[in-house]
Amino acid sequence: MIMDQMFLDDFKISDRFVSPGITVTESMIIDFALAYDPQPFHLDVEAAAGTHFGGLIASGIQTLALGFRAFLQLGVFRACGMGSPGLDELRWLRPVRPGDTLHSDAEVVEVRPSRSKPDRGLLVLSFKIRNQRGEDVLTMRSMLLTRRRSQ
Amino acid sequence: MIMDQMFLDDFKISDRFVSPGITVTESMIIDFALAYDPQPFHLDVEAAAGTHFGGLIASGIQTLALGFRAFLQLGVFRACGMGSPGLDELRWLRPVRPGDTLHSDAEVVEVRPSRSKPDRGLLVLSFKIRNQRGEDVLTMRSMLLTRRRSQ
Repeated sequence: MIMDQMFLDDFKISDRFVSPGITVTESMIIDFALAYDPQPFHLDVEAAAGTHFGGLIASGIQTLALGFRAFLQLGVFRACGMGSPGLDELRWLRPVRPGDTLHSDAEVVEVRPSRSKPDRGLLVLSFKIRNQRGEDVLTMRSMLLTRRRSQ
Repeated sequence: MIMDQMFLDDFKISDRFVSPGITVTESMIIDFALAYDPQPFHLDVEAAAGTHFGGLIASGIQTLALGFRAFLQLGVFRACGMGSPGLDELRWLRPVRPGDTLHSDAEVVEVRPSRSKPDRGLLVLSFKIRNQRGEDVLTMRSMLLTRRRSQ
């Protein structure tokens, strides 16, 4: 199976996709926080040290974005990705700190061809983002609208 | 009530917080996509025109980030924000296109002081992100760890 020519029809329940890593830097965390999540524990090393986090941590939305980015790098959605209708049960389980390396680990839990639109369907993934110590930092159930192979 | 001196104790069920707007530009969409979500419909105006979206749209993760940013600008979490354990039932309902202006509208649905940690509790919000036509583009149930007023 060529990874960047996959379609809904090629995914099977329990298929797993583990991504390459992305190392999170202090500069990435602060740049993202400036634009999107300007809370002291994402923006200010000094102030963050005095919070219950004990130091600078990445915005949870940035962790989500990086994990999805790592997943896209696998190429399995290059031909078939049509966007996402949503996600469920997202949990931020552990802080992500400068120097941490994130991988995503996505397992197929449902493959549902559309009844009304024969060119597409829904793929549901049990999606985990893990750090370099193998600890889950984020888990969720992610829905992806996925193109079917032309019949 | 001074907005930037609010604590868990000051939030009541049905309180609503409607944010100022943020206008989404083509350049913001492409910059975000380059870093975090490099799919053709977020990155390439020409390719996007040929997809079912009919043109460039923002990454859903960017829409989430911008809506949360707009919410933070209200200041209600300036003194009491302690991060988030997660969110539920996130749905991307409509595409966000260059020129759209987003507002967030958050309603308090639960206020739950922690039993084990008297300095904090959980605030649950029914969170909507809306465009300039009053259409919901994203809805979710958002949990926020929130500091209590010192007794």
